[in-house]
Amino acid sequence: MKAYKDLSKEEREEELSRLKAQYQNYLDMHLSLNMARGKPGSDQLDLSRGMLDVINANSDLTASDGTDARNYGCLDGLPEAKKLMADMMDSQPEDMIIYGNSSLNIMYDQISRSYSFGVMGETPFCQQDKIKWLCPVPGYDRHFGITEFFGFEMINIPMDEHGPDMDMVEEYVKDPSVKGIWCVPKYSNPGGVVYSDEVIHRLAALEPAAKDFRIYWDNAYCVHHLYEEINIPDILEECKKAGHPDLVYKFGSTSKITFPGAGIAALATSPNNKKDILNQMKHQTIGHDKLNQLRHVRYFKDINGLKEHMKKHADIIRPKFEAVEEVLDRELTGLGVGSWTKPRGGYFISFTGNKNTAKAIVSKMKEAGVVMTGAGATYPYGKDPDDANIRIAPTLPPLDEIKLAAEVFATVVKMVSLEQLQ
Amino acid sequence: MKAYKDLSKEEREEELSRLKAQYQNYLDMHLSLNMARGKPGSDQLDLSRGMLDVINANSDLTASDGTDARNYGCLDGLPEAKKLMADMMDSQPEDMIIYGNSSLNIMYDQISRSYSFGVMGETPFCQQDKIKWLCPVPGYDRHFGITEFFGFEMINIPMDEHGPDMDMVEEYVKDPSVKGIWCVPKYSNPGGVVYSDEVIHRLAALEPAAKDFRIYWDNAYCVHHLYEEINIPDILEECKKAGHPDLVYKFGSTSKITFPGAGIAALATSPNNKKDILNQMKHQTIGHDKLNQLRHVRYFKDINGLKEHMKKHADIIRPKFEAVEEVLDRELTGLGVGSWTKPRGGYFISFTGNKNTAKAIVSKMKEAGVVMTGAGATYPYGKDPDDANIRIAPTLPPLDEIKLAAEVFATVVKMVSLEQLQ
Repeated sequence: MKAYKDLSKEEREEELSRLKAQYQNYLDMHLSLNMARGKPGSDQLDLSRGMLDVINANSDLTASDGTDARNYGCLDGLPEAKKLMADMMDSQPEDMIIYGNSSLNIMYDQISRSYSFGVMGETPFCQQDKIKWLCPVPGYDRHFGITEFFGFEMINIPMDEHGPDMDMVEEYVKDPSVKGIWCVPKYSNPGGVVYSDEVIHRLAALEPAAKDFRIYWDNAYCVHHLYEEINIPDILEECKKAGHPDLVYKFGSTSKITFPGAGIAALATSPNNKKDILNQMKHQTIGHDKLNQLRHVRYFKDINGLKEHMKKHADIIRPKFEAVEEVLDRELTGLGVGSWTKPRGGYFISFTGNKNTAKAIVSKMKEAGVVMTGAGATYPYGKDPDDANIRIAPTLPPLDEIKLAAEVFATVVKMVSLEQLQ
Repeated sequence: MKAYKDLSKEEREEELSRLKAQYQNYLDMHLSLNMARGKPGSDQLDLSRGMLDVINANSDLTASDGTDARNYGCLDGLPEAKKLMADMMDSQPEDMIIYGNSSLNIMYDQISRSYSFGVMGETPFCQQDKIKWLCPVPGYDRHFGITEFFGFEMINIPMDEHGPDMDMVEEYVKDPSVKGIWCVPKYSNPGGVVYSDEVIHRLAALEPAAKDFRIYWDNAYCVHHLYEEINIPDILEECKKAGHPDLVYKFGSTSKITFPGAGIAALATSPNNKKDILNQMKHQTIGHDKLNQLRHVRYFKDINGLKEHMKKHADIIRPKFEAVEEVLDRELTGLGVGSWTKPRGGYFISFTGNKNTAKAIVSKMKEAGVVMTGAGATYPYGKDPDDANIRIAPTLPPLDEIKLAAEVFATVVKMVSLEQLQ
């Protein structure tokens, strides 16, 4: 393929008119497709239907420590749920707190507690002058949504294929008003990046000026492999080795393992942090849903059961990822209109177009009935300085719809990129 | 019975030595009984076992509006769950937000949001000089725990058989730093008081100086009748009539209807408040557990099913309340050692002994192996100015244990009261 910039004026005009006709065809189809959110499809949700049978009216609902899972109590979760989630999150059961159905809720609450009451005896964020937060970009819009809501100043940290730019991170944490960093260390949202060992070691070795600085380690896709199992060093262990056991909060959930609406979520951290958190959390709740904890444990039995389960997810969504990649490879390679990731896991493909094209592309997609994540959403404040990054979420629609949506996307990318050259 | 104060010195000594022998007998029994927390017994929990069968691997998990209850979304809850909880809480479905398993968590979050972000555009509590909170006493220790944790100044408002002292409440709300009042309007914790119509009307008619003042209406026992169904005016409706539709947040849950560990909780409030809350809550979570919402709705079918279910609870716990009352009536009447409530619903009996006896009674009970709620717990900061009130929670232990615990209690009350007279 010849790059668009190398086409003659006539060639460009011819190509553009061909693309416009193609786009008009799609308009005429009155499509209604959605590649906006990282939601599992209903065939994936069907994989976990069996979990609804492992607890029934005749079940023994006593946990391994004798707790009646139906009643009040057990603030940090049932022992067997701690074990399962610890195995999933590369942690020890005693490091765990098991929550309700949302790890986002844990992260929000963690920041909310830091804001109102402070981290391990430090001054509450709300009484400090200014709070800054490091945001590897492109990243997860709901992370940025929390730190924006609390009024923190968010600082963009560029990502490459190894993770966030650690030179920048190391420089910024010298500022005592920098209190945290968002990290999605495996199959990052949206870039699909797996942090390198070096990045993880450098994160664990950070010596932030602020004692209440914490790494928010959202390992949302820890077992969400599309191909082979990829493992990374455990950040909590690395922090311990580096002499900073309290530097990190790790988050995880079964939202994309069982049911997004009815999974369990967990936090893993050091004994000091855990004690600090429970001392605050005891005022908020008597305990989270323990029957759902029991349901998860009895369904998977152990981490091996959970890993086997994840292979079934991969079998369903891998073809969707590959379908998008096939279309993008076929239609866009060599044109100089952008690049795209080929993730080995997670829920997203990240497309980076030419500067100042993303908003136009997403807008044209919407006109054609294909909803994408809003352009800019992968950056703090919704502002992509290059207006170039678009997150593609291929899991929810059926395979044939994903293929069609990808074709529309390729057409729109070409059309917008070419129009920009005119 | 002759009042203790009217006994001669010899009679007192004789009675005391008899009581001490009785107490020694209890000590020798090495009891391990618990009347501390308002927890349902396992026979009550068994009543809801059927709820674990209404959703199984073969169920249609689509809600009435087409939502797949397994997936993400639906921030304010499924329509059918709103309907059920609205009927239970005397509200309209459109006023509802359905949460996870804990209404305490809603109340905490509501205060936390007011603290960090403010109520409907007002200055966040954390940026205001001082926050004060009205606390009808005796009251619920976990309520007071939240407002103490946030550093609010708590003001005791005495309760009588009609509810909180409204003259005091009306006077205090003239102070713009007074931002809220805790209310358990039906079968209050621990007094079992049902607020009178007049108290409710006066609460709804309040004209607080602070625009961000809210009534925290924790109707935890709205359908928890021990005898006939008792109904009270709906505070939200009364607030509307009085021209203050935004004055109240109503809270409720199924914790003591189905499972304390795995129920659903809800908030009901005005459209303005609801909008304000959802605008903040959307940063915290994508939605609560919708499968558990569906489970509740399909099990009860409607409010009538839920009310029938509550009669079964009453049949189990009414004999426990009556057993305690029988012992107290038989053993303590006329002695001048205290008074006790005979609630028509809820989870507690409130015992008010002579001044400066409660701590000693609870301590002697503990020595004898009977755990009670800590003396003072029913007051802010754990400080009962009279050291007189003790909360009795008769639901958890089996009936024979409750009877025995009540006998021990009567003995200890007499012994401590008499010793005080010496």
